[in-house]
Amino acid sequence: MNADPHKNDLAFQTVTEIDALLAGGAITSRTVTEHYLQRIATHDRKINSFITVMPNQALAAANASDQRRKAGRAHGPLDGIPIALKDNIDVAGVATTAGIEARRGHIASSDSAVAAKLKAAGAVILGKLNMHEGAHGATTANEAYGYCYNPHREGYTPGGSSGGSGAALAAGLCAAALGTDTLGSIRIPASFCGIAGLKPTHGLVSTRGVVPLAWSLDHVGPMARSVADLALILEVLAGPDTADPFSRSSPKPSAAVFTTPKSLRGVRLGRLRDLDTFAASPLHADIAACYEAALTQLSKLGATIVDVKLAGYQHNQIRPKAMLVIEADLAVYYAKLLEEKPTGFSQIFREGVAFGQQQSAPKLAAAFEAIRSVQPIANVLFAEVDALVTPTTPCPAFSFQQAMPKTLTAFTAIANYVGAPAVSVPMGLTKDNLPMGLQITARPWDDLTALQIAAAYEQAARWAMKPAGF
Amino acid sequence: MNADPHKNDLAFQTVTEIDALLAGGAITSRTVTEHYLQRIATHDRKINSFITVMPNQALAAANASDQRRKAGRAHGPLDGIPIALKDNIDVAGVATTAGIEARRGHIASSDSAVAAKLKAAGAVILGKLNMHEGAHGATTANEAYGYCYNPHREGYTPGGSSGGSGAALAAGLCAAALGTDTLGSIRIPASFCGIAGLKPTHGLVSTRGVVPLAWSLDHVGPMARSVADLALILEVLAGPDTADPFSRSSPKPSAAVFTTPKSLRGVRLGRLRDLDTFAASPLHADIAACYEAALTQLSKLGATIVDVKLAGYQHNQIRPKAMLVIEADLAVYYAKLLEEKPTGFSQIFREGVAFGQQQSAPKLAAAFEAIRSVQPIANVLFAEVDALVTPTTPCPAFSFQQAMPKTLTAFTAIANYVGAPAVSVPMGLTKDNLPMGLQITARPWDDLTALQIAAAYEQAARWAMKPAGF
Repeated sequence: MNADPHKNDLAFQTVTEIDALLAGGAITSRTVTEHYLQRIATHDRKINSFITVMPNQALAAANASDQRRKAGRAHGPLDGIPIALKDNIDVAGVATTAGIEARRGHIASSDSAVAAKLKAAGAVILGKLNMHEGAHGATTANEAYGYCYNPHREGYTPGGSSGGSGAALAAGLCAAALGTDTLGSIRIPASFCGIAGLKPTHGLVSTRGVVPLAWSLDHVGPMARSVADLALILEVLAGPDTADPFSRSSPKPSAAVFTTPKSLRGVRLGRLRDLDTFAASPLHADIAACYEAALTQLSKLGATIVDVKLAGYQHNQIRPKAMLVIEADLAVYYAKLLEEKPTGFSQIFREGVAFGQQQSAPKLAAAFEAIRSVQPIANVLFAEVDALVTPTTPCPAFSFQQAMPKTLTAFTAIANYVGAPAVSVPMGLTKDNLPMGLQITARPWDDLTALQIAAAYEQAARWAMKPAGF
Repeated sequence: MNADPHKNDLAFQTVTEIDALLAGGAITSRTVTEHYLQRIATHDRKINSFITVMPNQALAAANASDQRRKAGRAHGPLDGIPIALKDNIDVAGVATTAGIEARRGHIASSDSAVAAKLKAAGAVILGKLNMHEGAHGATTANEAYGYCYNPHREGYTPGGSSGGSGAALAAGLCAAALGTDTLGSIRIPASFCGIAGLKPTHGLVSTRGVVPLAWSLDHVGPMARSVADLALILEVLAGPDTADPFSRSSPKPSAAVFTTPKSLRGVRLGRLRDLDTFAASPLHADIAACYEAALTQLSKLGATIVDVKLAGYQHNQIRPKAMLVIEADLAVYYAKLLEEKPTGFSQIFREGVAFGQQQSAPKLAAAFEAIRSVQPIANVLFAEVDALVTPTTPCPAFSFQQAMPKTLTAFTAIANYVGAPAVSVPMGLTKDNLPMGLQITARPWDDLTALQIAAAYEQAARWAMKPAGF
């Protein structure tokens, strides 16, 4: 327990704010790192967001950062900032479990591309975060490493698969985090935990050294307390990686410095009517209401709101195709480990893989074809508007005693199918105080546009999302 | 038979030359169109390069072009130029057989993206060209529509699958042609027939309205008598198509006007040693010798020649994976037609599809993974050199009595795996007068670089490729 209110505030500061304190000499990276380590020791037993804490490496990195800063050689805004990584992202010398029992103690021999970039930027890696087993699910009900809980409500899911990333941020246990996102796994926990998350454009951030779920749909991205923080971290993570088959050079020049726009004049935003039909289930009433309020807010900021339809897109028809792509890839990736350690996987994970194994090649080819058929639909959308605005999820966080709704990825998966950037930003609390997220999906390579729209909304809305008791 | 030597010359002029004659008023589009139609009537019985000739539509288009030109409103360098299309490319109102008996009389309801672009540019569509059944093979030994023969040698293959496109050009039966290319199907017939062909960057030219072979590897591209012609046609074909899932906006500004560079100073070209090992079969001696001579020529033009290895790339290991991708896609695309008209396909085609049907989803997932693994190898290559120079094929055209060598795509397929542009340009004749092709493979979106290198070589080498008897 930490009684110093200043220090408690520190844990909930944004990266931008902590960087200003570090730069001004008000605190050291060692102080802030120790503070987070202490908070993890105190609070993580309640939410179980970390699989591995790395106190020695983190403190050594913090000391090195402080020395650079003293010498006037700080590497930039992430230097000395404590960041935690989802446990499917390799950090050399540390286990990458991917939340799978059979991978317990599976030490990474080298850094993932993103870990290497964070280290080069001076970031302090605090530890590895809990996640849904193999990223194959969205609740983080992890039987092997323990359930991860939502800091906003006891016994509730933080979402997933990057549930540990969302929970640790919401509980003030790190300044920022990385997650991965195949159908919504960054944005769903961002929405459920009241923080911000970005799934970048496909190919913008290297996935080298990340345990795959579905090669062609996987993304790595930042999760943080503000949209400006997402932009800061994206700047560090982005860029071509010749060793990553999916890495691409951006066709656009990168933005100089991210700024939150004062106005959204000239920006055209798509609004979805009939969200119930789109999600194929009734939308939570508070989410429906806050979505309308958010659109009003965006309109007040100067944006033009346009009704769009996404004609031809049916989440419920494409979702099983995406699941087949995932389960066929899992069958390839885990073939050997499943044979060696069959009991090191949950029954449901093994069933998913077995399903993939039993399907035919043409069925998978047809699944890829169905996923590709979404691209022209998105092209029509993006000819009309600069971004699509939706709720991030059709419901808020739910109790672990409830089954995961199949519609959870109804609004998020389309960005994975077409490689578009999508930001989730808090859009308020339900009547019973659970966070809700607003999602901004922009054209591929327009990550900056998605971030700017989200940042303008965030600044206008000013939601306070700190959970009680942390 | 046509006795006028001027007119016979006309049939072998480049698009650029015919355009100059049209622009100067020396000839009309009607004259040149009639001339090609007459030559088709006379010569095509020997080579069987056309499946459908479109005299009425062609003459109407030629008349319309002549009227535009008279009125000073010609659309550009393709206005009035007679071009023929491979028969897997839709032209509204005309059958698209894809070389398959079961598709005989299958009338296209609308134009493919490329046919629409050619028409909008004023081109005269002469007809539809013979091809390997379903593009699933590289000899154009088409049992349904008749074998297509190489104008350079009786009883020999023109290559394939765009064999009709190569043969028609070599025989002077059209000014330019379109082909499609999944593992080398534009470049192999270009090489075998002594003409030029370009497989553009993946996503640069829309494949909408083209019968698929393997969705993710298919490309459409130009075939012509000169590299400058390829550039002219590419300019018309290129550009984003919101209705095509694979279409992409070029990250580079498009070139103003194509010019053949006088020097290749500053250009770094990769040379492959151990071509025999690479192709997993002994290279034809004349091809090996001419490849060396071509490299000397390129070096004299100022290019720096660098030995490269493509370490880790094994054609023979990836080829079966690509075949699985093809055959799984065929199983999806032809499922219905195979059920309706099983006898409308050759035994070998049905066996290919049956193979695809019998494979498992994880085997296909692993095949995609293997194909993607080529990308980092290409990235290493293109960090060293601006383009890779190889022979287009390990052997020249062969008799239909010989089996198709499995190594035919040894040098071409890599460009399909990584989406890179690749040009085949004539590099001389074997001792017994069969054409050979030189292939230039450049970085994705560097189509202009590939064309410039090929054009510089073409201008320096000045190979005469007209077959006897046409």
